[in-house]
Amino acid sequence: MTGSDSQQPDQPIMQKRYQELREKLIELTHLSSATALLHWDLETYMPKDGAARRGQTISVLSALCHEKFTSPEFEKLITELHEKMGSEKMGSGSAEKMGSGTDFAGAKTEPDPIFSEEMACVVREVWRDFTREKKLPKAFVAEFAQVTSDAHAPWVEARAKSDFSIFSPWLKKIIELNRQKAEYYGYEVSPYNALLDGFEQDTTIEDFDPIFEEVKGFLVPFIAKMWSGTDPIFAGDFDPAAQEAFCKEMLAHMGFSFDRGRLDQTTHPFTQGFHAGDVRITTRYDRDNVFFSIGSSIHEAGHAFYDLGLSAEHFGTPLGESLSLGIHESQSRLWENHVGKGKSFWTLMYPRLQKAFPKPFADIPFEQFYRHLNRVTPSLIRTESDEVTYNLHIIIRYEIEREIIEGTVAVDDIPAVWNQKVKTYLGIDVPDDARGCLQDVHWSCGYFGYFPTYCLGNLYAAQLYAAAERDILNLEEEIAQGSFDHLREWLRTRIHVHGRKYAQDALIMNATGEKLNPRHFAEYVQKKFGSGGTES
Amino acid sequence: MTGSDSQQPDQPIMQKRYQELREKLIELTHLSSATALLHWDLETYMPKDGAARRGQTISVLSALCHEKFTSPEFEKLITELHEKMGSEKMGSGSAEKMGSGTDFAGAKTEPDPIFSEEMACVVREVWRDFTREKKLPKAFVAEFAQVTSDAHAPWVEARAKSDFSIFSPWLKKIIELNRQKAEYYGYEVSPYNALLDGFEQDTTIEDFDPIFEEVKGFLVPFIAKMWSGTDPIFAGDFDPAAQEAFCKEMLAHMGFSFDRGRLDQTTHPFTQGFHAGDVRITTRYDRDNVFFSIGSSIHEAGHAFYDLGLSAEHFGTPLGESLSLGIHESQSRLWENHVGKGKSFWTLMYPRLQKAFPKPFADIPFEQFYRHLNRVTPSLIRTESDEVTYNLHIIIRYEIEREIIEGTVAVDDIPAVWNQKVKTYLGIDVPDDARGCLQDVHWSCGYFGYFPTYCLGNLYAAQLYAAAERDILNLEEEIAQGSFDHLREWLRTRIHVHGRKYAQDALIMNATGEKLNPRHFAEYVQKKFGSGGTES
Repeated sequence: MTGSDSQQPDQPIMQKRYQELREKLIELTHLSSATALLHWDLETYMPKDGAARRGQTISVLSALCHEKFTSPEFEKLITELHEKMGSEKMGSGSAEKMGSGTDFAGAKTEPDPIFSEEMACVVREVWRDFTREKKLPKAFVAEFAQVTSDAHAPWVEARAKSDFSIFSPWLKKIIELNRQKAEYYGYEVSPYNALLDGFEQDTTIEDFDPIFEEVKGFLVPFIAKMWSGTDPIFAGDFDPAAQEAFCKEMLAHMGFSFDRGRLDQTTHPFTQGFHAGDVRITTRYDRDNVFFSIGSSIHEAGHAFYDLGLSAEHFGTPLGESLSLGIHESQSRLWENHVGKGKSFWTLMYPRLQKAFPKPFADIPFEQFYRHLNRVTPSLIRTESDEVTYNLHIIIRYEIEREIIEGTVAVDDIPAVWNQKVKTYLGIDVPDDARGCLQDVHWSCGYFGYFPTYCLGNLYAAQLYAAAERDILNLEEEIAQGSFDHLREWLRTRIHVHGRKYAQDALIMNATGEKLNPRHFAEYVQKKFGSGGTES
Repeated sequence: MTGSDSQQPDQPIMQKRYQELREKLIELTHLSSATALLHWDLETYMPKDGAARRGQTISVLSALCHEKFTSPEFEKLITELHEKMGSEKMGSGSAEKMGSGTDFAGAKTEPDPIFSEEMACVVREVWRDFTREKKLPKAFVAEFAQVTSDAHAPWVEARAKSDFSIFSPWLKKIIELNRQKAEYYGYEVSPYNALLDGFEQDTTIEDFDPIFEEVKGFLVPFIAKMWSGTDPIFAGDFDPAAQEAFCKEMLAHMGFSFDRGRLDQTTHPFTQGFHAGDVRITTRYDRDNVFFSIGSSIHEAGHAFYDLGLSAEHFGTPLGESLSLGIHESQSRLWENHVGKGKSFWTLMYPRLQKAFPKPFADIPFEQFYRHLNRVTPSLIRTESDEVTYNLHIIIRYEIEREIIEGTVAVDDIPAVWNQKVKTYLGIDVPDDARGCLQDVHWSCGYFGYFPTYCLGNLYAAQLYAAAERDILNLEEEIAQGSFDHLREWLRTRIHVHGRKYAQDALIMNATGEKLNPRHFAEYVQKKFGSGGTES
């Protein structure tokens, strides 16, 4: 009470305050970790009748985290540290973070020398999270959670009956809440920018528009003239236990350690990273389609490698956290597509697959298998689409949800707009809304601004893999021989270990030598699929 | 600030305060539930390298629970309610709770009519927990946790090397801390009473002494003249997956619903009840001994039925919590011994066991199997002992730990005292401390006063089962036919559903018509084992 903000605190005092911050962040991270386990268990091992009460437990812990993170005590602490570290320059946040090409995005702020670069980064990122979380009134957060929770069942019913009118009243509410959210956060140009920032920090439509235009400009004509594979899906009755054994063998080859992780079964595959010593992935075993569990296991392992590669030393602070959804997705897609659908990978794994499932694979030559694995066919369902057409599904979502939020497309017109875009971009007719605009759960959860990160992930993945191929001389040979150490280590040192230290552009620049450039994706697709078939 | 404690608050105000209490208790229960899941997962599915960080997460949540439960705000709330409800009479706590034979233990206190009997019970029990938890200084709690955590490894080493001197310095510290704890709590007659109260509330050596003397007086001569079975243990190589399938089948027969629970594997079997919709048990599958998983599954299912039978309506308050360790153990032992080692149960299950494990059981007649299952042999290890000799293991612990706490036996003399008692009570020689006083983990965890609840559980179990046999006309026939509904329902309505409403004596009185009476155990043993063999 006797000091004032304008006084210059001693270095030891600020160091002590920083340690306090760190301890509070670690405590919060442990609470989040407990919440994450409640979620993971709900999806994996929860007895049927336990689910309702589990929702309440999760809600209690979530509220507690929010309460602690926005408490007056925490506010005082982070404000004090942030002001001391040059709030005048760091205040605007995004500008510094997007500074690409600099080795440390916050360097311009010239932090007080009593703080290390890492400490400055922690304060900058926590301040960012704090100010964002503080902007939403508690009642609004509760209403948002309630409406999106209530909207789930109507969405399930609407999809089951393929009746958009069942979901549209809920969607209208959710959109209204998202607009309100954007107002709370504040934005420039478009309210959609405020939402994008929640999923891919410091990005706006000005970043996305030119990128997606380029991708679309390349893909739409490319797909139009593509050979459309008509190979039947390999029929088979794939025993789930054998699928699990095969997936575990495959993951072990890739370097996924079961001392630090698990593979379990859930309806929708996901990755839950608790810390660098415990990262768990899940998959689903479809009896009639072995490719689902294989593809999703590789995908989730890519996510897991990221979480496993985060700095254990910085556990609890932003330096030990993953950067953004787009960067996270780049890791999963790099493994799923660039590795897991490549010739080298299957040179290694196909004999093992044939052994695990002699029926039907024993009699199928490698080339036929590989062509099947990489067939490109415009299709209705995003999650089942191939790596080429996938991005158009995302761009369709991006264009529509942006217009919805900006108010230039009415909710009732969504099905018609959707169907028209699918026809234009993918060349196919949408037979019903279940296989159209109702197929994905995201909007019912209140996620507007999430979809574009999927496409971003694909573009980053292509650019990163091209750089890895350049840096690791015999990458494809190594993969074919079952050696993934160089690739994992390359990704760890280029991406994982930095946590939230750099902005996305700076991180990608450091890793690949240039900012995000969709050209790499186009070149990859052109090379692999451009000659009318598949070659790698 | 304007009112004073002596003013009579309005009913609506106190009702509101009671609702506040209830909400806080429910929040605390959700936090405990999350902590319990962290523990359960640690024992079941945690990847090896995740364990250390998990310990920290558990510690953060435990500290948070303690902090919330002993916060000034909570103290104000519970104090206000407790004072209002007649603190003068309820203050001494134990006297009211032990009032046996009354329908409601707290009835004498004549609670203010604005509060229901149930509300009065909640306030009484929460006040009890609160005042007890408040008595320990925070630094002491931390030191106790630290020392008992550090003592684990020396105990493991001492047991492995059968060298008491490795553990004794730690044991001395732990005993000193327990004496200190007793001083904090306060006690009459013996400091051991203060510790007993932490495991079996409202019991003292004056309760235990006459009971244990009676049991000992009956068992020591009984065992001395017992036929000591020398049948070899049935040799076999019991596939763990087949054991699991058999245990699940058996549990399903017993009425354990896998919609509300699970069976998983751990080194040491345990039960974790989250709430009445999610109660999980664990077991271990020994390849060479199928009886371990069978016996422990039935035992844990008995615990589980208790947790499943608690009132869902009273979730979060003492009315929805189990009463004491002794009562909990009565449920597990009733199922494990009185049901699970009985002729009726195996009339039902033996054909199924023979089918599951034709080797060795196909050729073994029922009578031989049953005799083997129920052989009585004085042995060194408590957890492997039969239901007759088991209680003497407990009484030995009880006598020694009481003397240690009271200071009449020195720590260095424990092995000699132990060995002498085993010789006197069980008639066998202890070859080493690993199979003697070092065999159990409890003391290293700081648990002094826990052991006697095991024996209490056995005595309650015998008395309850005798009453159930009286009340349920064809109980044994029902069991033989695979119908356990009457028995489960009898236990649910007599014991489970009451939570902590009654004291143990009142609960047992209501269920069986008399206070705890060890005669029922003696009669059961006499009848089953008294003629020199086994008959039921």
